[in-house]
Amino acid sequence: MRTQVAIIGGGPSGLLLSQLLHRKGIDTVVLERKTRDYVLSRIRAGILETGMVELMRKAGVGARMDAECFTHEGTVIAYGDEEFRVSFREHTGSDVIVYGQTELTRDLYDAREAEGGKMVFNVENVVINDADSDAPFVTYTVDGQTQRLDCDYVAGCDGFHGVSRQTIPLTVRREYEKVYPFGWLGVLSETPPVHEELIYSWSERGFALCSMRNANLSRYYIQCSLSDSPEDWSDDNFWEELKRRIPACHAEALVTGPSIEKSIAPLRSFVTEPMRWGRLFLCGDAAHIVPPTGAKGLNTAASDIHYLYHGLVQFYEEGDPEGIDRYSEKALARIWKAERFSWSTTNLLHRYPDQSGFDLKMQRAEIEFLRSSEAAQKVFAQNYVGLPY
Amino acid sequence: MRTQVAIIGGGPSGLLLSQLLHRKGIDTVVLERKTRDYVLSRIRAGILETGMVELMRKAGVGARMDAECFTHEGTVIAYGDEEFRVSFREHTGSDVIVYGQTELTRDLYDAREAEGGKMVFNVENVVINDADSDAPFVTYTVDGQTQRLDCDYVAGCDGFHGVSRQTIPLTVRREYEKVYPFGWLGVLSETPPVHEELIYSWSERGFALCSMRNANLSRYYIQCSLSDSPEDWSDDNFWEELKRRIPACHAEALVTGPSIEKSIAPLRSFVTEPMRWGRLFLCGDAAHIVPPTGAKGLNTAASDIHYLYHGLVQFYEEGDPEGIDRYSEKALARIWKAERFSWSTTNLLHRYPDQSGFDLKMQRAEIEFLRSSEAAQKVFAQNYVGLPY
Repeated sequence: MRTQVAIIGGGPSGLLLSQLLHRKGIDTVVLERKTRDYVLSRIRAGILETGMVELMRKAGVGARMDAECFTHEGTVIAYGDEEFRVSFREHTGSDVIVYGQTELTRDLYDAREAEGGKMVFNVENVVINDADSDAPFVTYTVDGQTQRLDCDYVAGCDGFHGVSRQTIPLTVRREYEKVYPFGWLGVLSETPPVHEELIYSWSERGFALCSMRNANLSRYYIQCSLSDSPEDWSDDNFWEELKRRIPACHAEALVTGPSIEKSIAPLRSFVTEPMRWGRLFLCGDAAHIVPPTGAKGLNTAASDIHYLYHGLVQFYEEGDPEGIDRYSEKALARIWKAERFSWSTTNLLHRYPDQSGFDLKMQRAEIEFLRSSEAAQKVFAQNYVGLPY
Repeated sequence: MRTQVAIIGGGPSGLLLSQLLHRKGIDTVVLERKTRDYVLSRIRAGILETGMVELMRKAGVGARMDAECFTHEGTVIAYGDEEFRVSFREHTGSDVIVYGQTELTRDLYDAREAEGGKMVFNVENVVINDADSDAPFVTYTVDGQTQRLDCDYVAGCDGFHGVSRQTIPLTVRREYEKVYPFGWLGVLSETPPVHEELIYSWSERGFALCSMRNANLSRYYIQCSLSDSPEDWSDDNFWEELKRRIPACHAEALVTGPSIEKSIAPLRSFVTEPMRWGRLFLCGDAAHIVPPTGAKGLNTAASDIHYLYHGLVQFYEEGDPEGIDRYSEKALARIWKAERFSWSTTNLLHRYPDQSGFDLKMQRAEIEFLRSSEAAQKVFAQNYVGLPY
């Protein structure tokens, strides 16, 4: 089999790239290790920056998103029983939207299927061959049969644990990482959200986040120990702990219900450089991870797809390799800014095991400075809605 | 002897308070452990915020400062061979001035002496008695003779190692501290400054600062190990190391010369709460220390003096204790903001022994974000010129 761009990974990054390129007449094949249903069962974030929203529209898959999404013009930051709001609209003229990654991925699958997109599921033993040559190819097995996919380029959209990043030799690859000493325990419940906007809540007991997917689907998180497992937390214990970590006015208004999903995610900052090696491009989680504070995960993948899509179109339509030659540099410049924001917002709002009294005072001073300073709120809002591509 | 306000410590804080109160007809006595000449031999910072400048003028001691100072409308931030400028004027409408603390202290001494201010030098064994009663008094010895000074109030302006803070019982006092794992090696030289504004320079070899007192008196600093002593650093070695830590264009232009002073200062963040106990008020270094990055040391003392001066005038002129009752709260609110700025600027620009590759990338991303963001520069400038009282 031959294609122009082999896409490793059928998550939102790979599907979005495939869909965008298809509309420019560029042929792709998507190789996914699991099944469509498995991909759609993964619970992921739901805050989309304008850049991601525009890519979805450009890909022709924005209709349901535009109809069903919720626009958030700001967010609430709480500490103890105090809270204030940072307006995105006022400080940047932009908003973010809430639209679950699961829904977005479903829209992308529906579009790729309707348009006859080539997707191969349940692939195993994926190997990216000769990425540093002019004739790369991908081998993989399906149902025990080895297959070969020849291509011009390979887009590695296969996540942190995927094969794409590992394909870049260690002599070339440089990795930067920070592992945080806590995780997030998340609960999804069919209850109305406690507030119409997100609440990022600092508390002496640890961070909490009140988020949502829609008017009857809430997503709540509490900072937890890395040694906890979801079974350690009954629904009742989760709700009790959440209530202690958010201002009393919200705790009293909180509608609780049975969890329909409960899981723990560790927090990690990770970047690999470069993001291009020969004809292989890394996109999204394959190249970088952010801690979820600030909701940058899917949005950083979107900025990679933006740069790679434009680079590939520039190459195939104009024969100009400038965009793909500068892909790594352009993508990384924006990634490091998003990493900075996610890292600093995580530092601002979480309890650390080794915090001194002075450290806690600095967190409080930072939060109160943000409350008091229009310029600081503008910095926060600009980062939250997404820096320009 | 009896006075209205006993002032412990004859540094700039105590002298400024004495001078300000004198002009409102409020009597003070200043007790200083050393001599005037000793106090004036101490090399200190030279960047004054507008608030401090206005207090000097209000105290009637601003004439020489206004005539001889240098106005700085911005500062340079460098990293490697890159640099950019943050304009204070453009972002805040304010500036800072350069006027050495030694000169400022000399002006205050001259004024106090000319106006017959009561100052006692070489005092030993200072004890603040009955500060929690309506009749406090200070005892001390001079030339082996024990003296007693009765007063309404005591202003503790005697620095970090002074007796004032120690007078507040540990059951009342809460202290917050961070000790940084490096110091600043400073050199004073009779050479023209390398640049007309300060240069705060991040480097892989550690932080450096190019500062000045006047057109032929430069003050340079390099981050050093806490185990270094000034004798470990010859002038030549100092200049060589400084040149390696600032952009090449400045290193080439640097005029070097013999050091006329060379010393190492450790970096510390420290705050004690509360800043009032009964009739004792802590001011300046007696209550808080900032690391010097951001030049907040004398300026935080100035804000304390501002609040205490207004509180005492409000009490003596109107019989209203509101200002002195709220002194600790008002002073601390501003102090914590200055502590936050000094801490975060220190974190931004120094090399830490345990920094990972990721940590270094975050520093660089923060510096580059500051370079790229008008809003972030505004936040920096607002803090640098001093938040409003």
